[in-house]
Amino acid sequence: MSEIKVVRNILQTNDEITSKNKKILDEKGIYVINLMSSPGSGKTSLLERIIAKLKNDINIAVIEGDIYTTKDAQRIEAQGVPVIQINTGGACHLDAEMIKGALNSLTLDNIDLLVIENVGNLVCPAEFEIGEDIKISVLSTTEGNDKPLKYPLMFEKSGAIILNKLDLIEFTDFDKKEFYKDIKSLNANVDLFETSCVKNQGIDEICSWLMSKIKNKKMKIK
Amino acid sequence: MSEIKVVRNILQTNDEITSKNKKILDEKGIYVINLMSSPGSGKTSLLERIIAKLKNDINIAVIEGDIYTTKDAQRIEAQGVPVIQINTGGACHLDAEMIKGALNSLTLDNIDLLVIENVGNLVCPAEFEIGEDIKISVLSTTEGNDKPLKYPLMFEKSGAIILNKLDLIEFTDFDKKEFYKDIKSLNANVDLFETSCVKNQGIDEICSWLMSKIKNKKMKIK
Repeated sequence: MSEIKVVRNILQTNDEITSKNKKILDEKGIYVINLMSSPGSGKTSLLERIIAKLKNDINIAVIEGDIYTTKDAQRIEAQGVPVIQINTGGACHLDAEMIKGALNSLTLDNIDLLVIENVGNLVCPAEFEIGEDIKISVLSTTEGNDKPLKYPLMFEKSGAIILNKLDLIEFTDFDKKEFYKDIKSLNANVDLFETSCVKNQGIDEICSWLMSKIKNKKMKIK
Repeated sequence: MSEIKVVRNILQTNDEITSKNKKILDEKGIYVINLMSSPGSGKTSLLERIIAKLKNDINIAVIEGDIYTTKDAQRIEAQGVPVIQINTGGACHLDAEMIKGALNSLTLDNIDLLVIENVGNLVCPAEFEIGEDIKISVLSTTEGNDKPLKYPLMFEKSGAIILNKLDLIEFTDFDKKEFYKDIKSLNANVDLFETSCVKNQGIDEICSWLMSKIKNKKMKIK
């Protein structure tokens, strides 16, 4: 089918711009997260919790990717950190060119952590590098434990996977044992976290882990 | 950005094949549903319930679209209806060419209802016509009421919208009033259903509505 060839062409150009984005971000020593999941897994809620916990210790900026609306950006802005909204106007993922534009609008000096919240989509965002240090994917318990094998690319490419909405697991048939078995088969060395934003559970662990990643990046740059 | 032009080229070819699919399906008087949602909204569970309710009265066939795995097709097969699995091998949506191939593998005589379960993705599947009579989109309460405005295309193009996992709404902050207000602004004439597969709630209403749609299609063909 013709699509396959087409995607390859886009990816080639995307990789070139990714390298440029990466160079800018590396020079500033900014640790960059590409945060991905299905719509409604809780990316923005997790981000609110993480920012609230870390904003007094480090400087955080956020790029919000949405097809339309600025709903998520408004929630992040309320946390008092700089946020840039990208509206893709239909496109199902962020690409490096969009991030390049957003980086031009951000004051990058003194930023320690840049979180790029991708468009809610368990498929396409994983195909596009955008200049990140790590991809983090979120799955909520209400989505079902069968999703990693059904949508493997995102889970394979992630450096960390967060199982969110732990407070709802008792009302679902989510099988954690199966979930972790499947994750292991796809991506044996990934870092794993379990969270509930409602109960503020697991946020401290993510924040400690993030702080060590940020510190590491700064050490490498110096 | 170059992608936009690319998508248009694909869509042109897709529309031509869609017309051919539609001709075949119309001649047989088969009512065709393109069932779409995010991963984990409950498409397959809904389909299990609908098939269990209708299979003694009408002949149903299913095309299962997944990136990888035959998990969903196995669940549908257990219901005793013919099912064709399409594995897209990475692609984030079904297109008309894939459906054309699946139709060649199905015995279409005497089929009354063909349900095509699309890849779990709230964005891309809505862009591709595949020969359906109606698009039905599913949103589960755990995904949040803000999704229609954030991912409008699928909700705009749907002839029916099903709000699923009603049993879990009490554990979420899902605002039904906001949800229906947003739906109305996008798609004033869409048919609306509320369901819980766990509690077998709302399935009878969908089945009655479906039976009238199937009957209508047969009347138009004759």
